[in-house]
Amino acid sequence: MALAKVVLGHGSGGRLSRDLVEQVFLKSFSNPSLKPLEDSAEVKVGGVTLAFTTDSYVVTPVEFPGADIGRVAVCGTVNDLAVKGARPAALSAGFILEEGFPGDLLLRITRSMRRAADEAGVSIVTGDTKVVERGKADGIFINTAGVGLIPKGRCLTSSAVKPGDVIIVSGNLADHGVAVMNARDRLGLQGGIKSDAAPLNGMIEGLLRAPGVRAMRDITRGGLATVLNEVSGACGLTAELEENSVPVSPASRNACALLGLDPLYVANEGKIAVFCAPSAAPRALQALRAHRYGRNAVVVGRMLKEKKPQVRLVTAIGGARVLLMLEGEQLPRIC
Amino acid sequence: MALAKVVLGHGSGGRLSRDLVEQVFLKSFSNPSLKPLEDSAEVKVGGVTLAFTTDSYVVTPVEFPGADIGRVAVCGTVNDLAVKGARPAALSAGFILEEGFPGDLLLRITRSMRRAADEAGVSIVTGDTKVVERGKADGIFINTAGVGLIPKGRCLTSSAVKPGDVIIVSGNLADHGVAVMNARDRLGLQGGIKSDAAPLNGMIEGLLRAPGVRAMRDITRGGLATVLNEVSGACGLTAELEENSVPVSPASRNACALLGLDPLYVANEGKIAVFCAPSAAPRALQALRAHRYGRNAVVVGRMLKEKKPQVRLVTAIGGARVLLMLEGEQLPRIC
Repeated sequence: MALAKVVLGHGSGGRLSRDLVEQVFLKSFSNPSLKPLEDSAEVKVGGVTLAFTTDSYVVTPVEFPGADIGRVAVCGTVNDLAVKGARPAALSAGFILEEGFPGDLLLRITRSMRRAADEAGVSIVTGDTKVVERGKADGIFINTAGVGLIPKGRCLTSSAVKPGDVIIVSGNLADHGVAVMNARDRLGLQGGIKSDAAPLNGMIEGLLRAPGVRAMRDITRGGLATVLNEVSGACGLTAELEENSVPVSPASRNACALLGLDPLYVANEGKIAVFCAPSAAPRALQALRAHRYGRNAVVVGRMLKEKKPQVRLVTAIGGARVLLMLEGEQLPRIC
Repeated sequence: MALAKVVLGHGSGGRLSRDLVEQVFLKSFSNPSLKPLEDSAEVKVGGVTLAFTTDSYVVTPVEFPGADIGRVAVCGTVNDLAVKGARPAALSAGFILEEGFPGDLLLRITRSMRRAADEAGVSIVTGDTKVVERGKADGIFINTAGVGLIPKGRCLTSSAVKPGDVIIVSGNLADHGVAVMNARDRLGLQGGIKSDAAPLNGMIEGLLRAPGVRAMRDITRGGLATVLNEVSGACGLTAELEENSVPVSPASRNACALLGLDPLYVANEGKIAVFCAPSAAPRALQALRAHRYGRNAVVVGRMLKEKKPQVRLVTAIGGARVLLMLEGEQLPRIC
């Protein structure tokens, strides 16, 4: 069916986003680099293999506990490069500002971008600013794009995931989404919930020193459930998730229960899913846990060959439930 | 002085844009690749030299005679790569959509992007879409970033321009700005004025087969006068422009006169300024004129060593007038 009008859910990262990509972007832009729809595209240039990625950020409010739109804009793009095994080489930054945006806030946001970029060991080398009239944007929107080098011999892709592979997540889920929602709606939830926004390229370099990692995904919009659906679709395997193993902090778990959110669908900005051979799992866990951003890394499930691949949650009481991609929009403007 | 609030002029591409870059972006992001502030940054990755650039597009209306926001978004980024001597390798596209944006218009815009990309011989390999609530954006904003390969031995930079170098423009100025303004304000100006938006990498490859080209600039926001001020600042030379030589079509000249616009400050999306040794000028002109987008290429002035470098217009009646950078905002949201 043709797309009539854009709705908020088209920006969710879930099924409606996928529909929009298939009905509009893949149709118009079709090419082999775009087709895998992973976190970054692979491009060969002058004999080297690059990862190339972009994201726009429209999160509101622009500052919230643990991060701000600038930090998220840098970390999101660094992580999209890193999960393809690329070493981030350079970032761009495009700003769309609403007339009247405060100068001191802009300076605070750009300084936060610089700190995140420094932590990732990458520079913001090119940029652009447009200004629109009052009422034609919402304060500030930031786009970042990133280029990274994929070292020779590295090939991380969801289609390489094999039956029996284990699924690891690098830490507690849902903190970013809960922190933004708490700040946006002044919910006053206690427990010091902070966004997890962090550049993960350092942790990932450590992880990749061990063999056996087949693919990684950045667990952002749509949450772990959506990422697993994408990987399941790409490799044709079932992803079986053990509910008891999924790491969520007590504070975020309580907040999600209160707000009617499922942590498996809430966005993160500093967590990855790793797919690796079972024999490689102990070393992978060790490498992740050795890094400050991976201390709570844990095995959450496995990939299985089944006639009808699906994403399945084995619940705490031994039941099973199918996890679809995020439908519609759970939390708009979370990144 | 610290920046209090963002005003429309900060997006003009002129002096206020430069102030914003110096007060905020250079201060926060400072690094050697960013510092030259040219149309793209040079980045060395894995032994190759890349050009990397980004631009966001907020032009209104989104469709106008000769082009649309999608075509401009592709051509602008292709041209920013090409004027650094780079061969475009891949583009990204980030969309910010307002809830309710029509699906058929989005498809038309993305197809137009594809046609422009095909003409440039480049693919859109990665993308992103965010959707914001009704009233929080203005229909559609597009960011494109681009990566290109700079062949070994090529080094085009404004600081390489030398005394005596001639200034060539590749064709008629001001058509893009006039076409957008005519469509936006339904002015009903006659003469079939169309945006000149075009990918210039093919024309530029032809031009660079001849030696002696020292630098090129994409003449977009702020117009030729602003570009010459930037180049004059980078190489420390005076740019002397002959008013009689500046090519403007009669229709656009009349429209500018009527609207109180100076064509030297109006944006183009398919014109470049070329700086080359005087001995190289005949071959450069020949190469440009051999291409459909360079048929009206002409020498418009020269670079001179003077105690106090400036941009000077020698008028039709033999007088002289200093051209400053664009002050404030002549035509907001032109790209």
